[in-house]
Amino acid sequence: MRALKVDLGERSYPIEIGPDIVSSERLKALIAGRQVLLVTNDTIAALYLDQVRSELNDFDVVSVILPDGEEYKKLETLDQIYTTALTHRFSRNATFIALGGGVVGDMVGFAAATYQRGVPFIQIPTTLLAQVDSSVGGKTGVNHPLGKNMIGSFYQPLAVLIDTAMLETLPPREVSAGLAEIIKYGLLGDFDFLSWTEVNIDELKAKNKEYLAEAIERACQMKANIVMRDELEGDIRALLNLGHTFGHAIEAHLSYGTWLHGEAVSVGMVLASKLSHHLGYLNEADVRKVISLCERAGLPSKPPKGMVVEDFIEHMAVDKKSIDGRIRLILMRALGHAYIEESIETDALFSVIASCCH
Amino acid sequence: MRALKVDLGERSYPIEIGPDIVSSERLKALIAGRQVLLVTNDTIAALYLDQVRSELNDFDVVSVILPDGEEYKKLETLDQIYTTALTHRFSRNATFIALGGGVVGDMVGFAAATYQRGVPFIQIPTTLLAQVDSSVGGKTGVNHPLGKNMIGSFYQPLAVLIDTAMLETLPPREVSAGLAEIIKYGLLGDFDFLSWTEVNIDELKAKNKEYLAEAIERACQMKANIVMRDELEGDIRALLNLGHTFGHAIEAHLSYGTWLHGEAVSVGMVLASKLSHHLGYLNEADVRKVISLCERAGLPSKPPKGMVVEDFIEHMAVDKKSIDGRIRLILMRALGHAYIEESIETDALFSVIASCCH
Repeated sequence: MRALKVDLGERSYPIEIGPDIVSSERLKALIAGRQVLLVTNDTIAALYLDQVRSELNDFDVVSVILPDGEEYKKLETLDQIYTTALTHRFSRNATFIALGGGVVGDMVGFAAATYQRGVPFIQIPTTLLAQVDSSVGGKTGVNHPLGKNMIGSFYQPLAVLIDTAMLETLPPREVSAGLAEIIKYGLLGDFDFLSWTEVNIDELKAKNKEYLAEAIERACQMKANIVMRDELEGDIRALLNLGHTFGHAIEAHLSYGTWLHGEAVSVGMVLASKLSHHLGYLNEADVRKVISLCERAGLPSKPPKGMVVEDFIEHMAVDKKSIDGRIRLILMRALGHAYIEESIETDALFSVIASCCH
Repeated sequence: MRALKVDLGERSYPIEIGPDIVSSERLKALIAGRQVLLVTNDTIAALYLDQVRSELNDFDVVSVILPDGEEYKKLETLDQIYTTALTHRFSRNATFIALGGGVVGDMVGFAAATYQRGVPFIQIPTTLLAQVDSSVGGKTGVNHPLGKNMIGSFYQPLAVLIDTAMLETLPPREVSAGLAEIIKYGLLGDFDFLSWTEVNIDELKAKNKEYLAEAIERACQMKANIVMRDELEGDIRALLNLGHTFGHAIEAHLSYGTWLHGEAVSVGMVLASKLSHHLGYLNEADVRKVISLCERAGLPSKPPKGMVVEDFIEHMAVDKKSIDGRIRLILMRALGHAYIEESIETDALFSVIASCCH
């Protein structure tokens, strides 16, 4: 078992990584009361709900099975969690468990943050993307029709239990999506990790357990280090958004759920690399390296067919005419060294995007 | 001007009390960005929206007018706030202002806590009850069909600005409801304040500004002291719920919005006094003093006509048959000295309630 700690004073918590890590002893040690609300989605329920429930025999467990999909990440779906907890008279001493990918983790975290003004919750992320990114750091929330993750809170879990055995059932496309975030960590702050990922990308894509556990640990450690320095995203935590402004535009353009988040982030990282090259920071070989790595990971490197520069503009909330319309982007001064760019010329931005579109 | 400070480290904030305290200079000193979302309800909008807006000429202000009433304190109404803020592209640097009573304050506080994972907000409470109680301490939230305040968070404001001049338009029934919470503070922790309230109850009811400002300051100071010791209601903050378990049962029985919250709390305090007498803590004269003070304040001292002990049981979530069905009540060892009672005999509880019903 690999174990890390996110040190946030009273809100500190462990991240534990390994096969079959979700054990009854561990859960007994973590959970204080008797009431447990175990929340998952219909896809994961079929695979792992019984297994996790069987480790919770010492508790009064009620399960909630949400519909699977980003389109259900909204306030209305949260009500299913609130109503179940209230119907079973769950108190402030209840513990919520999120068993699933990023959507389940974000929603259950927000429900836990807001049920009776806050109950403890445990993250059991089942996708590679959730294991290396969304389950760590306490960002919780739901989407609003007018914007992704616009309603939420910072609320740290009691623990993150990463069962690498659960990756066995993960479809290849979801593995690739998780690799996008792993590549992101290297690009934004650790050239050595980027090189390691490059060397081992085939093993990672083939779900070699040893390499995946190593990648998850390194990614979680990087995320933990950043969150410990800037929990509420005052400054450096924004570096974790490398590729995400472009990525969110792609997801919004396609309607969320068509491309996976990691796929959109992959294209976003390529765009950020090209813009960084345009500004004179990365050279052409650096950009080729990013494109090649994403493609070897099974990820797209170009925006979806038919998406044009105006579509990006619309969803990036940039308006040429607006005086205050400055956009904040995460770019790279070098591979492994991201920074916050707030004075990008819109002409440069648009011409780089245009050059990438089909 | 009277000023207090709620000392909570990074989350500290001032409470300022006086006539015409909502000034443009004060708001300029408090608000960091340019975007201000000013949220009120239709009743208060007609009285004070223009006045407050005129003090915000230096900002980009967007107003939201919610329907007035406890029945609108729900997730669906929050969406009006989120949608307006998103439509106007309000960023994480926006400041929300709650102009209204407890319902507006609780909802805007929760919207601020959850909009883009948290933006600063200012409380401008317009009812006596909100001024002495709900605007201070950071409890925010909305009701759920299955329970009051079941969805929410602890989220402290940037400042509480209590403009006592706004009490001029407050209807007498709402003044009385606020006096219930003022009486509560004396009963739970300050016999001197209770005696002062008793001596000056007629002046307070008649809206004598000097006495009201004094009462508001003393009440806010007591609340601040308790919140500073126990922000997240781990223990002693629960004392502020004196009269509230019974009160919530009355409100739930009548459907929220029929009786004012303070009216239900008044009856709750009488019931808590009688139960404390039953346990041998208060004497008969103490109980008569509580009843007399509530009645002089214009408040009810008996449950609504037709409400029987079974109605209380239903809404207090007590079940005679349930093993874990222990109820937690705030009672008094003496006037001015509340405590948490967790081992009350249900027979005693029910007979005292029955003796008070019509």
